[in-house]
Amino acid sequence: MENLLIVGVGFMGGSLALALKKRGYRGRVLGLDLDKEAIKIALEKGIIDEGLDKLEDLKGKRIDTVVLATPVRAFRSVASSLKPFVGKAIITDIGSVKGKLVLELEEIFGPKFVGGHPIAGREKSGVLHSDPDLFEGKKVILTPTEKTDGVCLEKVKNMWTGVGARVEFMDPFLHDWVFGAVSHLPHAVAFSLIDAIEEMSDGVDLFKYPGAGFRDFTRIAGSDPVMWRDIFLENKENLLKAMDVYVKSLEKLKKLVENSQEEDLTDFLAKVSKRRRSLG
Amino acid sequence: MENLLIVGVGFMGGSLALALKKRGYRGRVLGLDLDKEAIKIALEKGIIDEGLDKLEDLKGKRIDTVVLATPVRAFRSVASSLKPFVGKAIITDIGSVKGKLVLELEEIFGPKFVGGHPIAGREKSGVLHSDPDLFEGKKVILTPTEKTDGVCLEKVKNMWTGVGARVEFMDPFLHDWVFGAVSHLPHAVAFSLIDAIEEMSDGVDLFKYPGAGFRDFTRIAGSDPVMWRDIFLENKENLLKAMDVYVKSLEKLKKLVENSQEEDLTDFLAKVSKRRRSLG
Repeated sequence: MENLLIVGVGFMGGSLALALKKRGYRGRVLGLDLDKEAIKIALEKGIIDEGLDKLEDLKGKRIDTVVLATPVRAFRSVASSLKPFVGKAIITDIGSVKGKLVLELEEIFGPKFVGGHPIAGREKSGVLHSDPDLFEGKKVILTPTEKTDGVCLEKVKNMWTGVGARVEFMDPFLHDWVFGAVSHLPHAVAFSLIDAIEEMSDGVDLFKYPGAGFRDFTRIAGSDPVMWRDIFLENKENLLKAMDVYVKSLEKLKKLVENSQEEDLTDFLAKVSKRRRSLG
Repeated sequence: MENLLIVGVGFMGGSLALALKKRGYRGRVLGLDLDKEAIKIALEKGIIDEGLDKLEDLKGKRIDTVVLATPVRAFRSVASSLKPFVGKAIITDIGSVKGKLVLELEEIFGPKFVGGHPIAGREKSGVLHSDPDLFEGKKVILTPTEKTDGVCLEKVKNMWTGVGARVEFMDPFLHDWVFGAVSHLPHAVAFSLIDAIEEMSDGVDLFKYPGAGFRDFTRIAGSDPVMWRDIFLENKENLLKAMDVYVKSLEKLKKLVENSQEEDLTDFLAKVSKRRRSLG
């Protein structure tokens, strides 16, 4: 029987475990987390079959596949300490940052490491909210390098298609530029917006008046702070670049309003509105 | 029988007409719009009982209530030309900007004018998408001044509670500060974000990779450009002030990332995430 180890028993790792079980995965799912409470919940809910709260508990166990599911900044140290226990396993991860992190993990684990990033998530966090259908119809980006072992890549790909996801390959550095723009930047924008409205809530509680669309628009600002701190810091360069472009767009719009450039403002809004509508 | 005139037969005006009819309004609903196509659709769909495509058609008709539902920048000129035809009517509006516009409309119409702003909306526009349940459970802000006629205010209030809305009174200038922050700023933020992602889509079509939450997050950027041009220009001062506060929040976050201030960054994100989650 196969043994799959999920390192970091949170919302994403828990959802993957549930998704695998729901789709008939016949191996055992082990969960490793320093947080004993998370392990307890995951065991109670049948999300994992066996819970470990320290690395040493791995001694003597055969592990076939490892999924790194901690916040991304913990990957390096987790990987180094994990390495002696999972010598022969296929290693993959579900982190939102790839780039040089992929090369570093590849250095630790060798060609059996396959970088992955499921484009699914929620503002919810914690293993308690795990959702067996989270990956259904979602994209999963895998970021193989020229060193990646083909068989391992195939196996990781099958794991994801098995839970209903559509797998796409991408260069790890291109990945970070793309998701810096379409995911990390929007999160930075949303977090900042809530901060700004809090700043302005002096004398009147502005949060009492969420306008049309406000809840949807700001939902991602409720995302897990540690996860996003790690993403922002790991993908710092791309995020900062994207934020610069964004501030320029904001200043462009600001000028059009400031100078009451009615026609240009209409053009600007019509163009972006049309673009957004085209996404459905 | 009462005659209610909706000036500007679009999504919001059409939705109000449908909502009234659904809730048993027994008067006639007239729709005035220069766009003959909009009138045609509204008649065909039973949204209005009578369509007018020029002011002169109002001659000889008794109008009891007028609802201004054009983009807000058209209010002044519409109001002046409308005035001779609707001498005795109660006048209200559904514009997203109040402030001095309320005082100007009050100057034209006198104490029978009652400023209003339903906090409901969609990215959809056009009378075709009108929704009879749009205002159900939504807030409607009315902005009476010391000159506002009490009976008119009561009637407008009843119109809104009759379609399921919760009415709240607010000073017209406070209204513009509040909604400049919680509605107009988020729209500016969303429009700019789409523009920035378009800018960055050089070589790779970034819109092919909408991350988790991206669709919800940017939905409001698909809103009607003319409506929003008008809102931005009419509430320029508050919007620019709010944008300045927002850019400061963005720069604050940027610095924390730039300098890898791990702890402060965690605090920042934890604080806004908690705030956002508290809204549900």
